[in-house]
Amino acid sequence: MEERIRASFARQGAMEMLGAELTRISHKLVEIELPFHQKLTQQHGFLHAGVISAALDTACSYAAYTVLEPDASLLTIEFKVNMMSPGRGERFLFRGEITKPGSTIIVADGRGYAIGDGPAKLIASMTSTLMVIRGRQDIRE
Amino acid sequence: MEERIRASFARQGAMEMLGAELTRISHKLVEIELPFHQKLTQQHGFLHAGVISAALDTACSYAAYTVLEPDASLLTIEFKVNMMSPGRGERFLFRGEITKPGSTIIVADGRGYAIGDGPAKLIASMTSTLMVIRGRQDIRE
Amino acid sequence: MEERIRASFARQGAMEMLGAELTRISHKLVEIELPFHQKLTQQHGFLHAGVISAALDTACSYAAYTVLEPDASLLTIEFKVNMMSPGRGERFLFRGEITKPGSTIIVADGRGYAIGDGPAKLIASMTSTLMVIRGRQDIRE
Amino acid sequence: MEERIRASFARQGAMEMLGAELTRISHKLVEIELPFHQKLTQQHGFLHAGVISAALDTACSYAAYTVLEPDASLLTIEFKVNMMSPGRGERFLFRGEITKPGSTIIVADGRGYAIGDGPAKLIASMTSTLMVIRGRQDIRE
Repeated sequence: MEERIRASFARQGAMEMLGAELTRISHKLVEIELPFHQKLTQQHGFLHAGVISAALDTACSYAAYTVLEPDASLLTIEFKVNMMSPGRGERFLFRGEITKPGSTIIVADGRGYAIGDGPAKLIASMTSTLMVIRGRQDIRE
Repeated sequence: MEERIRASFARQGAMEMLGAELTRISHKLVEIELPFHQKLTQQHGFLHAGVISAALDTACSYAAYTVLEPDASLLTIEFKVNMMSPGRGERFLFRGEITKPGSTIIVADGRGYAIGDGPAKLIASMTSTLMVIRGRQDIRE
Repeated sequence: MEERIRASFARQGAMEMLGAELTRISHKLVEIELPFHQKLTQQHGFLHAGVISAALDTACSYAAYTVLEPDASLLTIEFKVNMMSPGRGERFLFRGEITKPGSTIIVADGRGYAIGDGPAKLIASMTSTLMVIRGRQDIRE
Repeated sequence: MEERIRASFARQGAMEMLGAELTRISHKLVEIELPFHQKLTQQHGFLHAGVISAALDTACSYAAYTVLEPDASLLTIEFKVNMMSPGRGERFLFRGEITKPGSTIIVADGRGYAIGDGPAKLIASMTSTLMVIRGRQDIRE
């Protein structure tokens, strides 16, 4: 499963564009890290909410992949993101975890942190609803 | 106000990274367009949910800017995005509109479309909650 | 279909408890009305956010029922509600409409209004994600 | 603070209507319990999503009250609820906890459980955004 997730992550143009790295894959939990870059900012110079969403959505989705049968795939139906502190920092960590597994619907929660020398600072949270897809060739991994 | 929005948009590293263009600014309504590019994709080759979120968040925020007094600024508190169809197409349009103006909280709704030769196809919707900020130097425009 | 929706509404203990009435059923759109009552309040004497959610969820769900095949049913997977103005007034109207029909997932949007002598006042909005269920006896209508 | 929360809860017509009890108040965490009753149901006989929302919103709000200065009050700006399992059972517990305190915006998360003889079953989760209000007489506690 880890191999499949790594291969899938590598196919994501958006993750490459952001400079995101897949740093942890464990049962029901995936982490992605992202160094700060000026290209990732909104108008105040903080991490753009869309960049935060992209990283959290990816972490939540791959957390769900860790419990998926080999011939199934996933689509994000919807998510909600709360921005809690400005995305300021040199490096960011995004953790996605399954809250409720299911045969059709999986709910995952994610949290984003600015990490540095001191304690990690919570910058955002996500709740994501994913649908398990079987038998659709266009979205097979 | 239009000038201020254009200047703010130009400072968004993330919008430049995505290749997004600000194509319409009117009272309570802003549109952003985005040509498809492989760098914007998730693992199935569709537009990444984070890219859709970035464009919708920006359109919703600038829609709110159109009713903002000159010395105030805005922060996105939270948003919810529903992905309705795979982000497939050559070009995408994201429209943000104010649903409820307010002196402290502004609620905006956004819709994303794949546009081409035929009718536009709805691919996503957003509801976004924005907070009006006054007197904080670090987030002044 | 209208008959089926009316029969289903009548089985909702919660709608009876609230004093809600089903006042309009049309293609992809359902309205519910609710007179104010002290039992529906939160601590400031306004309509409780949970009451607003109940009415909007029901309006959105039945809007989705209007396009459902006879042997299918629906479950609310999730919703988001924005409270826009205090729920003050003598009577309230809640309208649910389908934004995106689908064979598995239906997205509906709802709006709640305080209605009286003057113009209706928008008090809340909902986006709701519903899943079409087939073949589960426990949730057949 | 506990006394103030109990007095505020007692003024909620909706909590009395539902038969809800305030069973735990601690720092940043509040629990509400609810016995099943036919009046609380949707059309399939399960707990109505609006009832779940009402209880979770109240638990999340009072969790936020536990860190509030005495002369301030709170308004729920918005929330998202995920329904994870049908609300089936004899008794339900709803726990709200502060995820991110703040001087203007407080984010709380809640979870709802069906409780009985066996292990508690997660039926729903909420993320709620609350705004701290100062100096508005109409919403003082």
